[in-house]
Amino acid sequence: MATPKDTAPQIPKRDTDFSEWYTAVALRAELADYTPVRGFMAIRPYGYALWEGIQSWLDRKFKETGHVNAYFPLLVPESYLQKEAEHVEGFAPQVAWVTHGGDEKLTERLAVRPTSEAIILPMYAKWIQSYRDLPILLLQWNSVVRWEKATRLFLRTAEFLWHEGHTAHRTSEEADAECRLILNIYRELLEDVLAIPVLTGIKPPSERFAGADTTYTLEALMPDGQAIQAGTSHFLGQNFAKAFGVKFLDSDNVEKYIWSTSWAVTTRLIGTLILAHGDDKGLVLPPRIAPFQVVIVPILGKDDGAVLAASRELAKTLGARVRVKLDDRDWYTPGWKFNEWELRGVPVRLEIGPRDLAARQVTLARRIDAHGSGAGRVAKQTVPMDQVTTVVEKVLADLQAELLARGTAFRDSHTTTAETVDAMVKALQDTPGFVKVRWCEAPECEQTIRTKTGASPRVIPLDERASGSCAVCGRPAKVWVYYARAY
Amino acid sequence: MATPKDTAPQIPKRDTDFSEWYTAVALRAELADYTPVRGFMAIRPYGYALWEGIQSWLDRKFKETGHVNAYFPLLVPESYLQKEAEHVEGFAPQVAWVTHGGDEKLTERLAVRPTSEAIILPMYAKWIQSYRDLPILLLQWNSVVRWEKATRLFLRTAEFLWHEGHTAHRTSEEADAECRLILNIYRELLEDVLAIPVLTGIKPPSERFAGADTTYTLEALMPDGQAIQAGTSHFLGQNFAKAFGVKFLDSDNVEKYIWSTSWAVTTRLIGTLILAHGDDKGLVLPPRIAPFQVVIVPILGKDDGAVLAASRELAKTLGARVRVKLDDRDWYTPGWKFNEWELRGVPVRLEIGPRDLAARQVTLARRIDAHGSGAGRVAKQTVPMDQVTTVVEKVLADLQAELLARGTAFRDSHTTTAETVDAMVKALQDTPGFVKVRWCEAPECEQTIRTKTGASPRVIPLDERASGSCAVCGRPAKVWVYYARAY
Repeated sequence: MATPKDTAPQIPKRDTDFSEWYTAVALRAELADYTPVRGFMAIRPYGYALWEGIQSWLDRKFKETGHVNAYFPLLVPESYLQKEAEHVEGFAPQVAWVTHGGDEKLTERLAVRPTSEAIILPMYAKWIQSYRDLPILLLQWNSVVRWEKATRLFLRTAEFLWHEGHTAHRTSEEADAECRLILNIYRELLEDVLAIPVLTGIKPPSERFAGADTTYTLEALMPDGQAIQAGTSHFLGQNFAKAFGVKFLDSDNVEKYIWSTSWAVTTRLIGTLILAHGDDKGLVLPPRIAPFQVVIVPILGKDDGAVLAASRELAKTLGARVRVKLDDRDWYTPGWKFNEWELRGVPVRLEIGPRDLAARQVTLARRIDAHGSGAGRVAKQTVPMDQVTTVVEKVLADLQAELLARGTAFRDSHTTTAETVDAMVKALQDTPGFVKVRWCEAPECEQTIRTKTGASPRVIPLDERASGSCAVCGRPAKVWVYYARAY
Repeated sequence: MATPKDTAPQIPKRDTDFSEWYTAVALRAELADYTPVRGFMAIRPYGYALWEGIQSWLDRKFKETGHVNAYFPLLVPESYLQKEAEHVEGFAPQVAWVTHGGDEKLTERLAVRPTSEAIILPMYAKWIQSYRDLPILLLQWNSVVRWEKATRLFLRTAEFLWHEGHTAHRTSEEADAECRLILNIYRELLEDVLAIPVLTGIKPPSERFAGADTTYTLEALMPDGQAIQAGTSHFLGQNFAKAFGVKFLDSDNVEKYIWSTSWAVTTRLIGTLILAHGDDKGLVLPPRIAPFQVVIVPILGKDDGAVLAASRELAKTLGARVRVKLDDRDWYTPGWKFNEWELRGVPVRLEIGPRDLAARQVTLARRIDAHGSGAGRVAKQTVPMDQVTTVVEKVLADLQAELLARGTAFRDSHTTTAETVDAMVKALQDTPGFVKVRWCEAPECEQTIRTKTGASPRVIPLDERASGSCAVCGRPAKVWVYYARAY
């Protein structure tokens, strides 16, 4: 007889070793695993379900805003990758190269796509003739490979899943508006679905996408005080249009280059979810993205057909409104299951035992309340059976809001405004997080801050004017910049 | 001023050159295009929408039957690919090899996955301990690369999109039942959604997947009399389990190898759709898979605000029930649009002109009736405005059924039973299609048929017993086999 696992998997305390805790949660919640290929992970079904949730939400938004899906080749000829100078400089060191097809050595090396501008823009050159062919609003869902040396599950992997949007426009203004539209869709995803507050704005030139004129970004703050880039939307100007000869005849009968954009979020978001919400018990999932919003655990003893039947009935009723998992495995104890589903971040647990059944009620526990108490011992409430659906829907909505509020409060209490570099150093020591400073836009001032603080410039907010002087050189400031140490 | 295209793109007659016609339809209906990478195609949004239709239908079916999605690495170490002897022999000649990561030469070559048994089974070895961990019912949606020399859009490409299911089971019977379950899901997809009738059964050993004990297959007959393999479901026995050491402790406390399956359909189905239903006017799409089931073409003259308004109103009303495209571009003539949407296979066209408006009606044309008449001149019917939704839904259902019936009638009238090899040769000349023969299961008899007829064995039906003698050697037959020339 196989021995059932009867003890809960242990994970390190989060605040003792954030990094080890993170990896343990990713592995033990069965989100991902290491594979025989260094730096490449397997995304397990529970982790992939999170990606599917992100994907289906975005797919609907993109379609509502006129975007369509397509697919372009995995492999990009080296000569194409080289056509945009900054682009190749940025990506070539990270490219996996295909050199042989079967037994035959290829005459030209093919890059496993690190991103697809260099294969999509040449197709646009073929497809676009007139202004009437514009805009093209297109994206693809795929994986890309970037040869990373130091990797971490989800956060930095040699292969990751993403979508990459690639749009072509008649005017600069229209392309820029597209970038901002996408930025706002990403912000809604992060805040409303994943319950992760973000700062949005643009990157300083040093942090731009290789080949972009402007990189819009979303930056979130993690509980260890480090920032993480959650998504980017690039205004590519006419750089790629010129490199690949993508022109159109405008209504004034003049031939012009198109304006292009590209944008992406990746499976890194799953790592961000773990970091943002998790606790000593493991993963904490916001209800809107949780693959299972509710787990039902029957408390079984002898002759408990009635409890099982009631659990199934409840799973069915509730299942019409929310995503439910019934854990009716008879080889695990309820206590083991409590730990397991807490580790896996299910927002709400419902227990039904003989006494609940007799009282026509269920016992409800919120995942967010589990932290800090003994194994499986959490604040619970009883809910009359005939009110379960209503109460659960209310609790899920509350949890979603609480997680966002908690993250926002943390972010705000870990954001400092500093007038000098010394003040930045102190702020990063005292309340690790974002430090907001005025900047004159000189690269050397940025370099001074990087060297002295170990932080990097994360985002220049779009809607805040800076008046006053640069925190480094004292010359007139042009913008505000949020600095942080970063993933 | 850019010149609008005012003539319809011409495509060759289907029955004059089936192959050229096929390529012209794929390109001009904007399903796919050639790219700078030989053998790799770009799938354009209209073609990708067909794939999304297939994907979403299958995803629902797979989930209803307990399957989950996951993701495994794109690259597979050469040593892993070599562990199953038949498997590597079958796939190695077609592998694209990654030899460098950035500037660094890899110590071991990595295969761009041609299929993923060799990277998934090692993960199963890690994940499976007890019979309680079984079954694993998992699939991934991705692309694979097989270095093909002679390629054709969708039908044979160096990269294609597919899903690959990989399941692990406790018993042989359970694994075999899984294969048959999937075969039936595929059959339903082909017949009920794509309106393509299929023969199902198993492949003879010569045509099995490299490493399989049994390959279940679906075979469809195209209008040129050639068969096409539409999907496969492989019973892998314990071959891969033994190669990768995937074992479990059974309830009898004995360690055993798991039984595995794998199965797939690919973007080849889009090529099959073109071949199966198309005509001299272009693509013909079955309503259930058509990205647009109805196109509305306003017939505009001067001062036609009322026609446009009515068209928009109709698009909105009808759009609540079916997938509608309103083509209100003012730089194309109605005639051009008729040709364009016929080329792109939209099942139903609705026209609204001033006279229709006055009579409170629309004019309806079925795509399937367009063939054989002059440009845009087709049998049409008028439909009272207040009955449009009901009538359109009825017409769409009829069209779906008609396409399947037409394909079935063609298949049946192009299937011959032959008693001898000479009769096979004659049948393949007279009515190119399937020829059904009795077979003793000796490889040399199969080889004789292949040599003399140029046809290959497509499928051995599961539910027909053969009594009588082998068409080649006259010894007692064991099975029926359908032969055909094939894509």
